[in-house]
Order: sequence, then C-alpha cells, then structure tokens
Amino acid sequence: MTRTTPAAPRAYRRLSVPERRAQLLDAALSLFAHRAPEDVSLDDVAEAAGVSRPLVYRYFPGGKQQLYEAALRSAADELAVCFAEPQTGPLTLRLARALERYLAFVDQHDTGFSALLHGGSVVETSRTTAIVDGIRRRAAEQILVHLAVPAPGPRLRMMVRTWITAVEAASLIWLDEGKQPDVAELRDWLLDQFVALLTATAATDPQTAAVARAALALEAPDGPVGVLARRVIPVVSEAAHLL
Amino acid sequence: MTRTTPAAPRAYRRLSVPERRAQLLDAALSLFAHRAPEDVSLDDVAEAAGVSRPLVYRYFPGGKQQLYEAALRSAADELAVCFAEPQTGPLTLRLARALERYLAFVDQHDTGFSALLHGGSVVETSRTTAIVDGIRRRAAEQILVHLAVPAPGPRLRMMVRTWITAVEAASLIWLDEGKQPDVAELRDWLLDQFVALLTATAATDPQTAAVARAALALEAPDGPVGVLARRVIPVVSEAAHLL
Repeated sequence: MTRTTPAAPRAYRRLSVPERRAQLLDAALSLFAHRAPEDVSLDDVAEAAGVSRPLVYRYFPGGKQQLYEAALRSAADELAVCFAEPQTGPLTLRLARALERYLAFVDQHDTGFSALLHGGSVVETSRTTAIVDGIRRRAAEQILVHLAVPAPGPRLRMMVRTWITAVEAASLIWLDEGKQPDVAELRDWLLDQFVALLTATAATDPQTAAVARAALALEAPDGPVGVLARRVIPVVSEAAHLL
Repeated sequence: MTRTTPAAPRAYRRLSVPERRAQLLDAALSLFAHRAPEDVSLDDVAEAAGVSRPLVYRYFPGGKQQLYEAALRSAADELAVCFAEPQTGPLTLRLARALERYLAFVDQHDTGFSALLHGGSVVETSRTTAIVDGIRRRAAEQILVHLAVPAPGPRLRMMVRTWITAVEAASLIWLDEGKQPDVAELRDWLLDQFVALLTATAATDPQTAAVARAALALEAPDGPVGVLARRVIPVVSEAAHLL
C-alpha cells in the first residue's frame, strides 16, 4: 500500500478511536434493531459500517456477543432518557409523554426488541438479562419520583413494577399484531391501565391512596383521568347492587 | 454379578420403563424446583432417585438439558390444571380459585420458577421459551372461556394477556421479596387488578364493556368487586372536579 492509495484504507484513519467505536456501534444497533441477533453477522456489521471485518474485531475482540451487549447498553441509555420528564403538571400527562417516547423506541427497534424480550436468543446471557433488568429498574425509579413518595412501600413499588411489565408485554403483543392498534390508542390504554392499577391498589394500601388522591387533585376534567372516569361510569353504574 | 446379589442393581428392574422415567422426572422436578438449573447436576438427579448416573443417561441421553425440558413440560401440564375451573358463579370467585392454585405452584417451585422466568439461564433455549409461552397461551384461553366471549377481539385478548404477564411479574417480585405479602393478600390484589383492568378497558372497547357488565351482574355485594368498589369510592370521590 502506497501513500497515494486513496479511499478505503486511508478512510480508516480519519475517525478517532471513540468515533470509530461509536460508528461501529451505530451500525450494529441499526442491524440488531431490525433483525434477530442470529440473523446478524460480523460481516453485516462491517459492511454496514463500510469497514473490514478485521477492523470490527479490533474494536470488538469478543465478536458478535460483545457488539450485541454494547449495542444493548447503548439502547438502554437511550431508553433511560425516554423516562426523564419534568416533575410538573398532571401525572398522566407526564406519563403520556414518557410512554410516547418509549413506544417510539419500540417502534424503531421492533425486531430487536421482540428478540430480546422473547428470550431464548443465542446472545442472551446473564449480562444481557442484567441490562434489561436495569432498564426496568430505572423506569420504576423514574415513575416513583413522579409519584413524589420519599419512601415508597412494598405495595406501591410492586404496583409500579407490575405496570412496567404490563407496558412491556403490551408492546410485545403490539409488535406481534403488526403494530395494531395505532400507537396513540395503545398509549392511552396503557395510561388508563396505570390509573386503574393505582386506584385498585389505593383500595388496600394507605400510601397508594395518598398518592392517588394527590395525583387526582392535579388532573383536569378534559385530561385522561376525566375522560376515563366519564367512560367508566356507565359501565359500573349497573353494579349498584354491589354498594 | 451373581443371581444372589441383592438390592441396588436388581432394584433397577422393579420399575417398568414408563415408571422409571416418571420417577427420574419427579426427582429432577423437585431438584429444579428449588435450585437454579446450573446448580443441579445429573449426579444430583441420580442420587435423589437412588439410581446410577448411567441409568439416568439411558433414559435421558440428552443429559441435563433433556431432563430440564422434560421436567418443564411436566410442570407446564401441572400448571394447565390450575386454570381449569367450572364455568359457574361470579367470575372473581373462579379467578380467585385459579389464582390460589397458581400461587401455590409458584410457592412450591420458587427457585426454579424465578430461574426460568428471570431468563439468561444456561438451559434456556427456544424450546424452553416455547413451553413457557404455551403456558401463558393456555392460561389466556382459559380466562377467555370464563369471559364467555365466542370471538374475543384484539383489545380483550390484549387485556387478558397483559394481566397474565402482570400476575407472573407480581409472582416473581413476591418471591424476590421473601414471599411477602402473604399469599391471600397477593391473590386479592391480583384479583383487584383484573377488575381494574377489565373496567378500564371497558371504557374504550365495547366488547369488553359487554363482558364487564355481564360479569358485574353476577357479583355479590360481599364478593371481591363489592369490597373493592366500597374501598375505591372514598379515594375517587375527591375527584368530583373531573366529572
């Protein structure tokens, strides 16, 4: 190779080490987003990044497994940003915005998201499981921040974690069903579920009841809780014999 | 070995092939129930069943992986029976009985249940994932039978599947937290969640609304829905500004 050889080999040198790493990771992430991990090869990553396979190995000596875990960590950081939301205004509007960003992420990483959460994948290890659990934990912590409870008790924590699993499960079903219903409808339904779970848990847990009361006080009549309440009344009003 | 040699070697012959298989499976199942799969060896299974390691291999040439999958299939069949329930009486009482059996199963298979569902286990494959998905599907079908809908629409199906995931998630959290709260409290809370989800979904899905109305009509004032309704009213009555 002479100094006058243009293009490819010299292009390798244009990026700094962190830049090259980021570029390979980006290429990997977009491949893992839309294909099952078993359908992504190191050659695919090299091709997508416009580099050679040995170069990919130089940055990721652990090969596909290492690339997958690095891509997953980067996706986890992206997801953590989804949940960040200013602590002002009605709770349901904050949750609606967080859900919107989460569902956009699910939409953009459809195949990879399904493969990751359906389990049994070749690249699944205790490390990938720990990363996914970390995402769930961060989401739960964020929600508890919005519930403004300094020391959330076991029932409230269980309720939040259960809802997060429900969101995840509903997202997977949504992907399985060809992204039906539309994303705004799914978001509203998940929000209704949150309100329903909070209310049902408030029935037996005093701390949750206090949170629910405080949250309800901030809701507007034309907000999600007002709409839900007016729609639920005709259904439950037939159950007057229970009161 | 002479014909007069007593005990061990001859004991092998006393059981028929299906009996021996069942005995090995039972031994494996009780080991896998209380230990992570990586902490169970074929020697442990042989010892628990009082047989030699080669005999275990004769019945399960695929070794631990095959034993694990067979044990999982047998646990899946046991779980399917949990959900079977006559279609009479209030819906919440039928669900309460099914939940009670399910939670007893979780209690009895604690470590194995956690290991299986936390993912990333060495014995996890697309086959084990398929078995677990099969359990969820059977549970969902059973619940839809009790909702008495001949052709359940996507929203109702999504609601049922979401609740099943919530039950699973809550069971895992319950195990993580040293089986707190007590099992009856957990069962009642999961039941309240079902009622809450059904009601919230009824708000936007006409088919679910019809199911909810029919179910509410069968509930008794001192049943789970009556108790929940009377407890929820004081919390939501402060939200009159939303109506």
